[in-house]
Amino acid sequence: MDTAALRILVTGGTFDKSYDELEGRLLFKASHVPEMLRLGRSRLRVEVETLMLVDSLEMADTHRQRVLSACRGAPEERLIVTHGTDTLELTARVVGAAGLPKTIVLTGAMVPYTFGSSDGLFNLGSALAFAQTLPHGTWVAMNGRCFRWDDVRKNRASGVFEECGG
Amino acid sequence: MDTAALRILVTGGTFDKSYDELEGRLLFKASHVPEMLRLGRSRLRVEVETLMLVDSLEMADTHRQRVLSACRGAPEERLIVTHGTDTLELTARVVGAAGLPKTIVLTGAMVPYTFGSSDGLFNLGSALAFAQTLPHGTWVAMNGRCFRWDDVRKNRASGVFEECGG
Amino acid sequence: MDTAALRILVTGGTFDKSYDELEGRLLFKASHVPEMLRLGRSRLRVEVETLMLVDSLEMADTHRQRVLSACRGAPEERLIVTHGTDTLELTARVVGAAGLPKTIVLTGAMVPYTFGSSDGLFNLGSALAFAQTLPHGTWVAMNGRCFRWDDVRKNRASGVFEECGG
Amino acid sequence: MDTAALRILVTGGTFDKSYDELEGRLLFKASHVPEMLRLGRSRLRVEVETLMLVDSLEMADTHRQRVLSACRGAPEERLIVTHGTDTLELTARVVGAAGLPKTIVLTGAMVPYTFGSSDGLFNLGSALAFAQTLPHGTWVAMNGRCFRWDDVRKNRASGVFEECGG
Repeated sequence: MDTAALRILVTGGTFDKSYDELEGRLLFKASHVPEMLRLGRSRLRVEVETLMLVDSLEMADTHRQRVLSACRGAPEERLIVTHGTDTLELTARVVGAAGLPKTIVLTGAMVPYTFGSSDGLFNLGSALAFAQTLPHGTWVAMNGRCFRWDDVRKNRASGVFEECGG
Repeated sequence: MDTAALRILVTGGTFDKSYDELEGRLLFKASHVPEMLRLGRSRLRVEVETLMLVDSLEMADTHRQRVLSACRGAPEERLIVTHGTDTLELTARVVGAAGLPKTIVLTGAMVPYTFGSSDGLFNLGSALAFAQTLPHGTWVAMNGRCFRWDDVRKNRASGVFEECGG
Repeated sequence: MDTAALRILVTGGTFDKSYDELEGRLLFKASHVPEMLRLGRSRLRVEVETLMLVDSLEMADTHRQRVLSACRGAPEERLIVTHGTDTLELTARVVGAAGLPKTIVLTGAMVPYTFGSSDGLFNLGSALAFAQTLPHGTWVAMNGRCFRWDDVRKNRASGVFEECGG
Repeated sequence: MDTAALRILVTGGTFDKSYDELEGRLLFKASHVPEMLRLGRSRLRVEVETLMLVDSLEMADTHRQRVLSACRGAPEERLIVTHGTDTLELTARVVGAAGLPKTIVLTGAMVPYTFGSSDGLFNLGSALAFAQTLPHGTWVAMNGRCFRWDDVRKNRASGVFEECGG
């Protein structure tokens, strides 16, 4: 398989939260995605672009429009969007409904990368693979699974992503 | 996308090496794959089967035939084989040449999972995604990339997997 | 040197904060001190007693009196108190002013143990050593250094513990 | 307590072993002690001097004489020697028998620092505390405990340091 160029659009979320020693709380400093690619010894040609660093609960529609614009404007056909899990499904719907001729994979993490127990590296690895192999469309990759943008939700009680079902 | 059942066939390799405190050296105890799936909070239905726990430099042709037999006999259509990187390409050729009607992804790690700096979790995440999305055939997934079984080799000088080229 | 019996009194603080995946924030589950002693392969005879699990900013005088009571009532002569760093100096003064005939070492961490980048294991190791070797009195052990209870403060700007000076 | 200047003499051992990705084995690159002091947010004035980077099983008497010379020649009164655990007791005897008017603490680790499960940070924290508080003499600090140089041995069966007893 040819190694397609990929772009990772960073929006923040749990993925990228850091612990602030002086304030004693979680906040955003800079994205950990470049460090995670180094740890994974990634050999893909990847561009990392930080669009914003926000908690997805604080995302308004203007934020989602910026994500959509960045997806539309990116020169690459294969894109990953890192995102907080709380409203990830909403951004997936905004991007997915636009029907861009691209493969766009949204991913996140349940635990910040800076914790030893984070699922972030695992999710990033699978998102990069899904982005290289899936057809055009918008997808959500979490915890080994991949969902269509119009059939995914986060189960608030269990914290697990699942199909909407019905 | 439906969540296909997957089987992970463990053969050992760097992936699974542990540090023995009494002997002061690296050796095999038990596979770390189940723990890695928990850390990745994997929601896939996965069977983990340990075929052997060996350094891939110690693999003889009989070992590779056992891997091939296990691939053939597994009830699942989608398989992952964890393997040492030194002779991973040789096993890929034995399995690939058999032309089984299955998607088989071999993967490994440059650094043992028990090290903080391991690429194992990243590779396992991407292997699981490749195994769900690629067509029948035998593939090698390393460091974000995926190679066909008959066009991959480990560059001994750089330690990087690459196409055979030419 | 004889291995004196030691008691560790847990009060919470940054040391013991965990990340809650469902809520997306830091909170207390159970103390990590037993796990830290296992990681350090501690061979000391140590009793771990959880008095409370609170953020030290939420400690009132009644909390500090409970810490003092526990220090007074403990059968061991050598004690460690794990504590949040924000008001650690206040509890040190309450305990220190009581002048108990014991060696009492308060310690904490700038970053939760569950983060890869925590100073907790280092501080716990040094607190255990200080508690075994220092004379009776109340001490604060942070980041390799040890302070008297009546000559220590946390510098709010730098986050560093230092003498009061003057 | 005043913060005495301290010198850490590095000799290698398990403490400092790194994993070589190309060779697939443990070897020495550079000492991890400076990184460990950063992680512990150590506020001590410490000099780190690498005397050698060897496995303690490969230490000959000339190596131990170099350690003794470095202890004697160091301007600081308080010293730590990081050392492999297999022959740590032998070096302790060479240094201890010299009776230098200094406090010298030998320490090591059962698991390399680069492993997530290392006891190294814990041992370094306690060694720094013991070096600040113990009287002149040569000591061995391991896993929370501290031993006199002439009454310590590594139990080969259990891997644990203990008094010689008898």
